[in-house]
Amino acid sequence: MAEPAAARLAGLHLVTDSTLCGERGLLAVVEAAVRGGVRVVQLREKTLATRPFVERARALKALLQPLGVPLIVNDRLDVALACGADGVHVGQEDLSPKDMRRWMPQGLIGLSIERLDQLDAAERLPVDYYGASPVFATATKADAAPALGLEGLRALRARTTRPLVAIGGIGAHNAGAVMAAGADAVAVVSALCAAPDPEDAARRLRAAMETTRA
Amino acid sequence: MAEPAAARLAGLHLVTDSTLCGERGLLAVVEAAVRGGVRVVQLREKTLATRPFVERARALKALLQPLGVPLIVNDRLDVALACGADGVHVGQEDLSPKDMRRWMPQGLIGLSIERLDQLDAAERLPVDYYGASPVFATATKADAAPALGLEGLRALRARTTRPLVAIGGIGAHNAGAVMAAGADAVAVVSALCAAPDPEDAARRLRAAMETTRA
Repeated sequence: MAEPAAARLAGLHLVTDSTLCGERGLLAVVEAAVRGGVRVVQLREKTLATRPFVERARALKALLQPLGVPLIVNDRLDVALACGADGVHVGQEDLSPKDMRRWMPQGLIGLSIERLDQLDAAERLPVDYYGASPVFATATKADAAPALGLEGLRALRARTTRPLVAIGGIGAHNAGAVMAAGADAVAVVSALCAAPDPEDAARRLRAAMETTRA
Repeated sequence: MAEPAAARLAGLHLVTDSTLCGERGLLAVVEAAVRGGVRVVQLREKTLATRPFVERARALKALLQPLGVPLIVNDRLDVALACGADGVHVGQEDLSPKDMRRWMPQGLIGLSIERLDQLDAAERLPVDYYGASPVFATATKADAAPALGLEGLRALRARTTRPLVAIGGIGAHNAGAVMAAGADAVAVVSALCAAPDPEDAARRLRAAMETTRA
């Protein structure tokens, strides 16, 4: 935990969607994506009962720990605590980061920011990074807010020094522009979970992030 | 926390169902039921998002704390930790009591037992009480297991010294028989949440539990 949050969070993030992973299974897709360069994995399950959720989280943690890839659990502090996750990511409607911090003093805590006017309150919370969400329109998240756009991302960048993880509608075609707009990291769901070859897709995403940034 | 678990758990329990409480609201129903003699409240929410769930749990805790009535949260350790609940109740598909205990060293941990053959494994877990569930057929819980019956309850009683909280299809007409079969407590959902007068219904349930037991 000595490494600062910004360094641990830089690069390409995979946010899971087990339905999109299909028959290949979540673990196989994650493993391939990590081979291709994914640096952080966020486990998101919106319908799973608690025990299978914990079992899945533990299996992922066992896969990622030896690879040095942090596992972040979406929304559920209980699952994160039970599997020994490296962090929790919450939305505006989830448990407050303040409540999380008490039980995860060292963990990475991420908070989704969907509108600029959420930033002031967020800056007073014990948060390690923001998910800027969604940057572009996305079909993956049914309840997603209106897109921030690159303009919104730049505005966030101008107003906070905390790491920004951009998510929503990002692929190899626009990942460079997103990094150029000030993101510290890019998170994708379908661009990896629905990719025929997640390892190759991760490699191309990383290249896109780095090329345009230089 | 000095009081032993059995003493803290004895009596009438209310397991909440906010839909059944209707327009009166959950808090008003709980308050009336506690006036009528409810000794333990379990908050059960199966569809609420995390933040409103925590808000509801905190409001209940603020109501119950001064009355000396323990609040137990169904399934969600994260919500229980955030609201300072007195315990957590889990089913066979929820987080394991072993994982719970680590984060709630002093809390009441309850586990639902639906079949006799679940008891052996349960006895090795750090559990304070069992929910014997369901004793009778019930319409309240969509995924309820086949009824244990008074026979099943007696069999559980013969095989464990841990407190048994009987739940499922219990009302004033059969609460006495349930206590006579060896339950330490009776938990109800609809018999209180759907009662026109929850205070009076609680009083009649308590009387039924005590009369037939004596």
